[in-house]
Amino acid sequence: MIVELLSVGTEILLGNIVNTNAAYLSEQCAALGLSVYYQTVVGDNPKRLEEALKIALDRSDIVMMTGGLGPTKDDLTKETAAKVAGLNLVEDEHTKECIKHFFRKKKWKKITENNWKQAMVPEGSIVIDNKNGTAPGLIIEMKKDGEEKRMILMPGPPNELLPMFINDIYPYLNLLQPEVIHSVTARICGLGESFVETEIADLIDAQANPTIAPYAKTNEVHLRITARAKDKEAANQMIKPLVKELKKRFGHYLYTTKEEALEDVVVKMLMERKMTIATAESCTGGLLASMLVNVPGVSEVLKSGFITYSNKAKHKLVGVQKTSLKKHGPVSEKVAKEMAKGCAAAAKADVGISLTGVAGPDGGTPEKPVGLVYAGCCVNGKTKTAEFRLTGNRRKIREYAASKALVFIRECLLEAENQLDEKEDETK
Amino acid sequence: MIVELLSVGTEILLGNIVNTNAAYLSEQCAALGLSVYYQTVVGDNPKRLEEALKIALDRSDIVMMTGGLGPTKDDLTKETAAKVAGLNLVEDEHTKECIKHFFRKKKWKKITENNWKQAMVPEGSIVIDNKNGTAPGLIIEMKKDGEEKRMILMPGPPNELLPMFINDIYPYLNLLQPEVIHSVTARICGLGESFVETEIADLIDAQANPTIAPYAKTNEVHLRITARAKDKEAANQMIKPLVKELKKRFGHYLYTTKEEALEDVVVKMLMERKMTIATAESCTGGLLASMLVNVPGVSEVLKSGFITYSNKAKHKLVGVQKTSLKKHGPVSEKVAKEMAKGCAAAAKADVGISLTGVAGPDGGTPEKPVGLVYAGCCVNGKTKTAEFRLTGNRRKIREYAASKALVFIRECLLEAENQLDEKEDETK
Repeated sequence: MIVELLSVGTEILLGNIVNTNAAYLSEQCAALGLSVYYQTVVGDNPKRLEEALKIALDRSDIVMMTGGLGPTKDDLTKETAAKVAGLNLVEDEHTKECIKHFFRKKKWKKITENNWKQAMVPEGSIVIDNKNGTAPGLIIEMKKDGEEKRMILMPGPPNELLPMFINDIYPYLNLLQPEVIHSVTARICGLGESFVETEIADLIDAQANPTIAPYAKTNEVHLRITARAKDKEAANQMIKPLVKELKKRFGHYLYTTKEEALEDVVVKMLMERKMTIATAESCTGGLLASMLVNVPGVSEVLKSGFITYSNKAKHKLVGVQKTSLKKHGPVSEKVAKEMAKGCAAAAKADVGISLTGVAGPDGGTPEKPVGLVYAGCCVNGKTKTAEFRLTGNRRKIREYAASKALVFIRECLLEAENQLDEKEDETK
Repeated sequence: MIVELLSVGTEILLGNIVNTNAAYLSEQCAALGLSVYYQTVVGDNPKRLEEALKIALDRSDIVMMTGGLGPTKDDLTKETAAKVAGLNLVEDEHTKECIKHFFRKKKWKKITENNWKQAMVPEGSIVIDNKNGTAPGLIIEMKKDGEEKRMILMPGPPNELLPMFINDIYPYLNLLQPEVIHSVTARICGLGESFVETEIADLIDAQANPTIAPYAKTNEVHLRITARAKDKEAANQMIKPLVKELKKRFGHYLYTTKEEALEDVVVKMLMERKMTIATAESCTGGLLASMLVNVPGVSEVLKSGFITYSNKAKHKLVGVQKTSLKKHGPVSEKVAKEMAKGCAAAAKADVGISLTGVAGPDGGTPEKPVGLVYAGCCVNGKTKTAEFRLTGNRRKIREYAASKALVFIRECLLEAENQLDEKEDETK
C-alpha cells in the first residue's frame, strides 16, 4: 500500500520547526512494510490544503495527516478532510468527556468555547483517544473511484503524535495487511558504513522475506531485519537465523539487537562487571560524560567527571605531568594516556576515559590538524590509547569524538575480559 | 513569488534522514520575502519525480530541488528537470575542470567514468560551482503558459548545499526582487514566548515594512525584523528604530542582535570582564560545560568543570558539606549554592555555576518531582540560586536545565555589574 504523509503547518513552511514527524512516520511505515512515496507540507490555508489532499488521495492509498487539529479557527485539517470525504461533522460525546477529563487532570481553568470544536468528528470516522492532549486522532475510511482510501488524522505535537501512533495507529495499520510485519535492528559500532554494506551485499541481494536494510547513524550502522509472517512469534523465528548470521559476521562489533543505544550498553556492561568509571575531557568539554548521564541509573557507575580544557586543569585535576604537556603538547597520545590514568586514580574508579583534541576552527597545525583527537582508556590500571582523525565543524568534531570514545570504552572492556579469560585458560 | 521545495531522496522517505535542508531553505526564503507554500519529498523514481515536478511548476513560480545530483544512475533530478523543461544535456567544460580540480584537492584516486555525468548540464542553464563536492548547482529559467518559472537544482548534502545557497543562490534570488530584503534577528532569553508575543502584539498588528516575526527556540524567543528597500544600507536604516524600540521594551532580556548564540555572548561577557568560570554539574552531567566549550576561544575563561553526579563527588570535588546533603538532599537550593561556591573555589575561578536536579524517569517524589532543578551561581564570592520546574523526558529536562543555566549566568553577571555601579554611585 502506498502512503503519503501530509503535514499541515505554516510554521514548517517558515522553517521555524524541522519536520521530524515526517521522518518518524516514514521510518515506522517502512517497518510496517508500507511504501511512503510522498511527503508533502502545506500551510494552514484551506484552499491549498484541499488541493494537496486531493492530489494525495489520487496517488496514494493512505494519507496520513499531522497538525492543524487545534482549537483555533486557523486549524482546518479536520474540516478539510471531512469536506473532501463528503462527511458532516458531528459532536462526539466520548471525546467531550475526554477533553473534560484532560482539563481536570491538568488542573487547567475553564474550558473555553473553542475547545468543543475538538469534539466534532467526521460522521462515521474512527475516533482515537488522545491521552496527551485534547485533539483526538481520526481515521476516515472511504471509497474513491471504486478504490479503498484512508485518511488518518493525527495531532502535530510529537508528544501527542508518537504515543498515539504506537498505541493505536500502528496496530490498525498492521491489521490492514494479510500478514504481520515485525522488525529487529542489529546495531554495529566501530566499523564503517561501506565496509558493513559490502560484508552483507550477498544478504541484501538474496533478500526476500525477511528483508535487511542498512541505516547509517553517527559512528554506527544499524541493520534492520524485517519479516512478514502470520504472527509476531513466527516472524521472530524467521529473523533469528539472519541475526545469528550477522553476529557471526560482525562479532563483537554488533553490540545489540535490542532497542538500546551504545551508551546504555556501555553503562550496562559496567554495571554487570560492578565497575565504576571516571571521565577527563578536553575538547569535548563534558559531552561524553553527558551521554553517559543520559542513561537512567548511571549513578551506580559514574564516580566523577573532570573537564580539563586548560593545561593547568589537566595537571591539577587529573595529574598530567607538566613535562608531558611541554614535550608532547596537550593533544598527544601521552597526555591522553595520563588523563585516563589520572582521572581514574583521582576518582578511585576502575575505568578512566579521556579525550583531548583539536576541535577547531583555530589551533590546527600541519602536524596536529583540526580534527585530530586522542582518547585514552584505563581499565584496572592498564591504559590504551586511540587516535581519531575527524572532519566537520567544531560541533561535529566534538560529537564524533564523544561517540568514538563510547566505542573505545566498550572495546577496552571486552579486551580486558578476554585477557582475563586467557589468564584463566593458562592457569587451567 | 511562490516557492516550492522539492527534495529528492528515497532515504528521506524511508525516515533514514530528517529533512533539515527543507527547514533551512524555508527559513532563508522567509528572510528573502519569498513565500514557501509547499514542501514536497519524492524518491529517486523518474516517473513520480516528473509528476511531482510538473505539479510544482503548475502551482509555484520557483521550484527549488535538492538531492539526486550524484554520479550514479539512480540520480535523476537533472535529467528529469531537463526533460520537463524540454532541454538537452550538454557537456560543460568548466564543470569538468572543477571536478578534476576537486579530485586533485582531495587526493582522490582516478576519476571514474560516471563522474563525468556530473559535468552534463541542461543547455542554457546557469551553472553554479560546487566548492565542496562534484555536483554543480543549476538554475533553469523557462516560460510555461506565458509565465516565468524557475527551477533551482542544488546538491543534497548540507555541507555542499548551505555554502552554495548562501554564496550564489541567495544573491540570485535577491536580485529577482525589485528591492533588497534584509533581516536582523533580536534574540531574547529569560522571557516566555507568549509574554514576548503579547508585548509586541501592537508592533505585529501595525507591521508593513519592516515586518516582525517571532520564532520560539529552546528557552529563547527570536524576533526577526525584515525590511525591503533599495539597498542593504537603506533597509538597515528602516530596521534600526524597531530594534531600538525592542531594546526599550525588553531591556537586558534582549541579549543580542548579531548572529551569535547565548553561549557565545556569555563567554564574551566573561572575556570582557576578564573573569574565569568553573562548572559543577549533577543532572546535566557536563552538558552545560559542553555548551560553553562549543565557543572557540573558551580556553581563556573556562578554568575547569566538575561532573559530580554522586553525593561523594559533590563532597569531595566541590566541597559540598555532608550535613547539607543529608539534611536538604542533593537536589536542593542549599546544595546548589555550595556546589557553585565550591567549584569556583576549587578551580580558583571568579564565577562558579552549578546544576542539580531530578532528570527522571525515576527518583521523583511529591516534594521533589521529576523536572525540579536548582542552579547556583557564585560571582566573586556572592552566590545566588534559581529554581526551575521543567517538563519532558530525561534528555529534554537536561537540555532545558543547561540552557536555563546560561541565562542565569548572564543575569548574575549583569546584576553583579549593577551592584558595582550602585556602589560607585554611592561613593560619588
